[in-house]
Amino acid sequence: MKISHIEHLGIAVKSLDEAIPFWENLLGTKCYNIEEVESQKVKTAFLKVGQTKIELLEATSEDSAIAKFIEKKGEGIQHIAFAVEGIENALSECEENGVKLIDKAPRPGAEGLSIAFLHPKSTLGVLTELCEDKNK
Amino acid sequence: MKISHIEHLGIAVKSLDEAIPFWENLLGTKCYNIEEVESQKVKTAFLKVGQTKIELLEATSEDSAIAKFIEKKGEGIQHIAFAVEGIENALSECEENGVKLIDKAPRPGAEGLSIAFLHPKSTLGVLTELCEDKNK
Repeated sequence: MKISHIEHLGIAVKSLDEAIPFWENLLGTKCYNIEEVESQKVKTAFLKVGQTKIELLEATSEDSAIAKFIEKKGEGIQHIAFAVEGIENALSECEENGVKLIDKAPRPGAEGLSIAFLHPKSTLGVLTELCEDKNK
Repeated sequence: MKISHIEHLGIAVKSLDEAIPFWENLLGTKCYNIEEVESQKVKTAFLKVGQTKIELLEATSEDSAIAKFIEKKGEGIQHIAFAVEGIENALSECEENGVKLIDKAPRPGAEGLSIAFLHPKSTLGVLTELCEDKNK
């Protein structure tokens, strides 16, 4: 699999209104995009640090994965997303290597990316996302 | 605070013998350093993805923070570390902004870095490390 960099880190937060100014202040950079991803039942806010985006995630519904994550583990880093070239092949490669896929095929994510999640039970507890910007 | 990039991500693992080949295979890159940090009661292994290192952390003692993290939350991403310039000033700035410091002054970390942790209770649940390579 060809991974170029960590595209983003997903951080589960209770409130974007609280988290955005906190991270803007700590990182010394402004949030540049806020977007609702209805299929994931989340509202997201993005900041950039070097090559990598910090994606703050607030649940818009109690049955969102983010709400469940916070209930179980508290606020914190929820997932890591790697930028890959050829996401379909990358997913096939993962499956061949025994990694369980949450998404068998890529689907649309925030910021116009094609994304797919790998199951944390087969990635040593790390919820892992692969993503590709097909508009590039 | 001047942050250039995410220096590394700390991932708590039960076994480096299991985690190193898994992440080498998934990321398509080799572990380039294994180091024991006695003061932290951990053995660490490093891989690099773009600007950022993946630091796999195995506890060497039951009372290590990594052992406690796994007991409480399971294996997974344990902390995020930002590369800063002027770590002492960065820590002062954090404190002035109401962030609680685990380390009031930088101390030696893995790979020859000066490091300091911020308390997750004051960083919305995200265990955050600042680090600086003073040998640069």
